[in-house]
Amino acid sequence: MDKKALYNLSYGVFVLTTKSGDVVNGCITNTCMQVANSPTRVAIAVINTNYTCDLIKESGVFALSILDETCMFPTIQHFGFQSGRDVNKFENLQAPTDVNGIPYIGWQTCAVISCKVVSKEDLGSHTLFIAEVEDAKLLSDKAPLTYADYQSKVKPKPQAKQEDKKIVGWRCKICNYVYEGSELPADFSCPLCGHPAEDFEPIYEK
Amino acid sequence: MDKKALYNLSYGVFVLTTKSGDVVNGCITNTCMQVANSPTRVAIAVINTNYTCDLIKESGVFALSILDETCMFPTIQHFGFQSGRDVNKFENLQAPTDVNGIPYIGWQTCAVISCKVVSKEDLGSHTLFIAEVEDAKLLSDKAPLTYADYQSKVKPKPQAKQEDKKIVGWRCKICNYVYEGSELPADFSCPLCGHPAEDFEPIYEK
Repeated sequence: MDKKALYNLSYGVFVLTTKSGDVVNGCITNTCMQVANSPTRVAIAVINTNYTCDLIKESGVFALSILDETCMFPTIQHFGFQSGRDVNKFENLQAPTDVNGIPYIGWQTCAVISCKVVSKEDLGSHTLFIAEVEDAKLLSDKAPLTYADYQSKVKPKPQAKQEDKKIVGWRCKICNYVYEGSELPADFSCPLCGHPAEDFEPIYEK
Repeated sequence: MDKKALYNLSYGVFVLTTKSGDVVNGCITNTCMQVANSPTRVAIAVINTNYTCDLIKESGVFALSILDETCMFPTIQHFGFQSGRDVNKFENLQAPTDVNGIPYIGWQTCAVISCKVVSKEDLGSHTLFIAEVEDAKLLSDKAPLTYADYQSKVKPKPQAKQEDKKIVGWRCKICNYVYEGSELPADFSCPLCGHPAEDFEPIYEK
């Protein structure tokens, strides 16, 4: 099996947010598709170790901000490269709220979808949520950002291979998690996004 | 709710094929996403009235050919605009077969994924299948076709509005089903893909 074949599935890039009690949080995800009409339903797959996944299980509601082609890397970094267990990602943000009182992203975003979970299935690494769409709003006429364009245009380029330099760590190409050490164990899985060692790239000494 | 917001979700375009006993069939779909790793699983949503949906329920296996940017409209037309209940879509095709003996598309396709269903959920209009990936192959280095590019570059353009001509029918913008008659009932749903009247465009007399 050549797992690279799976990289050819097309996705968007989203900020997935929720609110459980007084706790608000959001993360970056690339998996959402409409799976039914009448009533309109979507499916999302969320990494089980993500704090947002726990919070959606509690709240049963979420908002999906569809990032557009104007998206800049700091937006991805803010929601994707730190955990809501450590910081309040909304502390200094002026974010509008949806019909469920959930903050969504009012910038670099072409649309927002407000959803109520109707079923969920634990698939090991991820939980699949099926949700009814309660509200949907267009925010701009910009084209949505695709995951392919995020990889080629938004994400900073990896360092070129440097033959004469030592490897000091390994970076997950999916979520940017950094493993410190010159040798990455072959059976290593990213503790943030669950991807295997083959999805890591070397970090060279300065 | 502005349902146009949902058009901003990004998708690929696929030929979904299966084989149940001696019957082979395939249809066009735009919904597939990876939903777990270790084991690698994908989810697909298939319209319940599609023959391919019935056949996957019987066989429990399917192949997903990921169409690439070289895809031409006749390929979409062949698999998407006729039913396997009426014609054998593979009758005159030289199609390779996957690990499960299912034919896949060997042209205009960048990758093929072979899957075994592990669970399914009926969502009214569609059935959501969760499946384990048994095999995956890269077929070309061409970029995958996105649903947005299919709509803007591959699909033939609709006729311009012709003020002085009579409307003789309505065409579903999603699947090209044709309703014959000058007035489309407001509560009409496409019998092929289930989309509502607002997704139809007028066909004018010649």
